[in-house]
Amino acid sequence: MHFTSEQRLDDALLENNLLEREFTLGDIPGILWTPASASASAPAPLILLGHPPLGLRKMYPRLVDRARSAAADGFATATIELPGSGERPRLPALDQARADLRRAMEAGEAVGDDIIDALVLPLVDKAVPEWRAALDSLLSLPEIGGPVGYSGGVMSIGIRLALVEPRIAAAVLFAGSLVPRAMFEEARQLTVPLHVLLQWDDEGNERHAALELFDAFGSEEKTLHANMGGHTGVPRFAGDAAAQFFTRHLK
Amino acid sequence: MHFTSEQRLDDALLENNLLEREFTLGDIPGILWTPASASASAPAPLILLGHPPLGLRKMYPRLVDRARSAAADGFATATIELPGSGERPRLPALDQARADLRRAMEAGEAVGDDIIDALVLPLVDKAVPEWRAALDSLLSLPEIGGPVGYSGGVMSIGIRLALVEPRIAAAVLFAGSLVPRAMFEEARQLTVPLHVLLQWDDEGNERHAALELFDAFGSEEKTLHANMGGHTGVPRFAGDAAAQFFTRHLK
Repeated sequence: MHFTSEQRLDDALLENNLLEREFTLGDIPGILWTPASASASAPAPLILLGHPPLGLRKMYPRLVDRARSAAADGFATATIELPGSGERPRLPALDQARADLRRAMEAGEAVGDDIIDALVLPLVDKAVPEWRAALDSLLSLPEIGGPVGYSGGVMSIGIRLALVEPRIAAAVLFAGSLVPRAMFEEARQLTVPLHVLLQWDDEGNERHAALELFDAFGSEEKTLHANMGGHTGVPRFAGDAAAQFFTRHLK
Repeated sequence: MHFTSEQRLDDALLENNLLEREFTLGDIPGILWTPASASASAPAPLILLGHPPLGLRKMYPRLVDRARSAAADGFATATIELPGSGERPRLPALDQARADLRRAMEAGEAVGDDIIDALVLPLVDKAVPEWRAALDSLLSLPEIGGPVGYSGGVMSIGIRLALVEPRIAAAVLFAGSLVPRAMFEEARQLTVPLHVLLQWDDEGNERHAALELFDAFGSEEKTLHANMGGHTGVPRFAGDAAAQFFTRHLK
């Protein structure tokens, strides 16, 4: 991991100023945010910030908002670019699956399992080892330590990561993306505490499938928070509740 | 409203000692808890504590726990005995409906709409005017003031009360009781912010019906918190989240 830039984000509202560092991990760009309070003698627990495959640059405003909120609770946060997104090389198969999805949705057709599988499974297979490699590097920093949380983004990436990566101690999942049937089996095997957000009127998500997936999760502690509104309309108090979940489990 | 007893509940953990006063409202017994901080110059907002029709005496340990938690957040709380419960005169039709329910459940039969209607609708019709009368008396006390919340208990009582009583500004409903079909129409007319708790594996509740009811609520702000476990297994953090909901809306 090589740091390529560093800036301090001052925030009049937060005493807890934030150090933002961009890095590369091989050819994968990423960003690390650490609160001013983090040090070798008081390492901050880390939350990995998942995001949809729209590119880090486009997602930056929402990511830095989440990083600021987490820092106010004493958490470091980090994220990396997803395969085929942003400035990383395109993945033609993924672009094809996206085109197929768009076509099906515009035609008002049901989105078939084959499209969902092609859209999600290769992304999960490629992304999860990258997030684990990022975790290796991030946890080697003296100012980062303790249990790790994963939050948001492509739900299937969160499921797979929480399943195969023992350092993930708790996960906030956002029921806002299509989930291949094969992931239900992985969901059943999960054991980490889960906090699942569902936007009741999410235009990109089948509510019934989201509830079925919530039911399938094997974790003994799992909580579903359903709120009104569409995909991007998560109310502020729902974010606060997710933050409290992490504070309960990572501190 | 006549106060019949008064005691101070000291609590080493809470600085906020609690004044517990039993009262009668006509022939209806009730209990009022006020935090030490409540006074004529700083009246405490009130949360009405709903409960299942098992009698105040039996419910007392859980009610006083809820009163203590609410007092720590600066709320007064009050409750009254339900019609046909505790030391109030039995209601033969209600007892009959309960016997029919028990028989159906023991026989493993689906509980018919006629049983649910007989069990719930007369109780709602009788109870809601009593809670409103209690509210008149409670709000005339100088140490009680501001918007009112309703929390828990028989869900249909909460729905009707939130619908007909304009002083109810927010309600926490517990999806743990049978709801007559007729109440869905009232649910659709609700406008107050709602916070709905659902125990995912509640043995006395149909999950599908609970989700259908949540969907029906007309309120612009409604949140569903689903947690694992049975009817009485609501985790402590779910109680904390409900408390934050009231703090957001009543203060």
